[in-house]
Amino acid sequence: MADFSPIRIDDPRDPLLDDFRNLNASDKKSGEQLIIAEGTLVVPRLLASPYPTRAVVGFPGKLRAIEEELSCSLSGDDATFSVFEVSREVLKEVAGFDMHRGLVASADRLPTSAATGDAGTSAVEAVLDRLEENPEASGVIAVLEGVGDHENIGSIFRNAAGLNVDAVLFGAATADPLYRRSVRVSMGHVLRLPWARFPGTTTTWQRDLELLQRRGYEVVALTPAGDVTLREATEAARGRGKKVAVMVGAEGPGLTEHAMRAADVRASIPMTRGTDSLNVATAAAIAFYEAVR
Amino acid sequence: MADFSPIRIDDPRDPLLDDFRNLNASDKKSGEQLIIAEGTLVVPRLLASPYPTRAVVGFPGKLRAIEEELSCSLSGDDATFSVFEVSREVLKEVAGFDMHRGLVASADRLPTSAATGDAGTSAVEAVLDRLEENPEASGVIAVLEGVGDHENIGSIFRNAAGLNVDAVLFGAATADPLYRRSVRVSMGHVLRLPWARFPGTTTTWQRDLELLQRRGYEVVALTPAGDVTLREATEAARGRGKKVAVMVGAEGPGLTEHAMRAADVRASIPMTRGTDSLNVATAAAIAFYEAVR
Repeated sequence: MADFSPIRIDDPRDPLLDDFRNLNASDKKSGEQLIIAEGTLVVPRLLASPYPTRAVVGFPGKLRAIEEELSCSLSGDDATFSVFEVSREVLKEVAGFDMHRGLVASADRLPTSAATGDAGTSAVEAVLDRLEENPEASGVIAVLEGVGDHENIGSIFRNAAGLNVDAVLFGAATADPLYRRSVRVSMGHVLRLPWARFPGTTTTWQRDLELLQRRGYEVVALTPAGDVTLREATEAARGRGKKVAVMVGAEGPGLTEHAMRAADVRASIPMTRGTDSLNVATAAAIAFYEAVR
Repeated sequence: MADFSPIRIDDPRDPLLDDFRNLNASDKKSGEQLIIAEGTLVVPRLLASPYPTRAVVGFPGKLRAIEEELSCSLSGDDATFSVFEVSREVLKEVAGFDMHRGLVASADRLPTSAATGDAGTSAVEAVLDRLEENPEASGVIAVLEGVGDHENIGSIFRNAAGLNVDAVLFGAATADPLYRRSVRVSMGHVLRLPWARFPGTTTTWQRDLELLQRRGYEVVALTPAGDVTLREATEAARGRGKKVAVMVGAEGPGLTEHAMRAADVRASIPMTRGTDSLNVATAAAIAFYEAVR
């Protein structure tokens, strides 16, 4: 195991800490920001992910807690990141709030030509190719349309990872899964689970669902106005030897008519009359549970 | 339909608005606070609930949006609450933050002798009595132990209401469901769905689970270390003509050993190896979905 010696920084103005400056304000900037992972559970998941770590900053005790993961990562060929040790006061001054987790890391996004998180049909196909080579794949993937809430995106990744869903594909108008809040709520699973974006606009991306159908997936649209129940839809798909793509839309508007029409079947979770729909991440979790056997 | 004329208040210091003063600070006070309902979806649910409304405060447009519900409630025999019309600035000054929903209501809790929310075996029995008289009951109830997070409590009530669960029973160390955040996250369903607390301490309350068993419920403990899957447990219970009590514990510690031993069966949701458990409200939703047919 390689050794690592964190660099102690006592001046909050040190430019080496610039990745972590005023994090709440950075969240509000438009465009894609650096990936930020927080805490002793999620930072090791970033280190183990394909995203290139830039820096890790933490209280002395927190750095010791992930010493092994840091040493392993730093002994890799492509290890280029720095480890900085700071006090609670310095981190607070830099981040702009009291970061009681005491551990935070930054990473670069991957270029769009990489297999993960790319925009373009080829990215979706690259993910599907990888799944076909994976003997442990469950045969269930998620497709999101219009899910704009970062917390819901994060929860969907956490649920997908826990319930053995293979990948998450993004239709149009879906929020950035690498946003800091999504990373945190997902418990780092957005950094591990394969995902890709369909190209196209809010009215054209749905054409590429045909890609999934050609690869043996039954596209099940989850909607309160389904023709069959979720159980009927997934059992029928399995009966025909199909894999399942569970497609969900945003809370409130739900799936677009274009997405509904492109699906193979519209299915509902049986609900109490007169109640609101479930939260989208909860509905998706139930669908993942039902589809994965 | 009875008419109602809101009283316009322009002075934020007016003592008539005291129920709504510094809401964030009130949340942090110990002991049971007034019930506070927010927004045009939840305030009507408070009006329709057994809890006695004290006051409704809103922007003019928001009061008009629930005019019908207000008139109906005020025409009831026991209608004694006031309706106050305020500007956004006045409400902000009173509540201590910008309440963009523009509508908020206060209500008293019920005395502990009432059937809902009571502490004592009789309260649990009163809820079970009501369910036995309800031909639309699904035969599935939830039992919570040690769930201390108000947001999780709220989500569990939202999911229970949506998925046709009949009631929620509380073991020891479970947070107050009538806390403002729980009411909001539940979308007001904590005000509608029957609930009651078991008496007893963290190590004795479990004895009363026997009450449920005597009433024909199979108590299914949800745990990552189950003896059977959730599906096997609920199908076996139904096969024996039993109703189902889904019991969940706090995220992290899970159910106590006492609760596990008092249950009829320990069941698991199949999870991916090496992933964290699901959020407790999500796990409960999956169990509700599986148990209710």
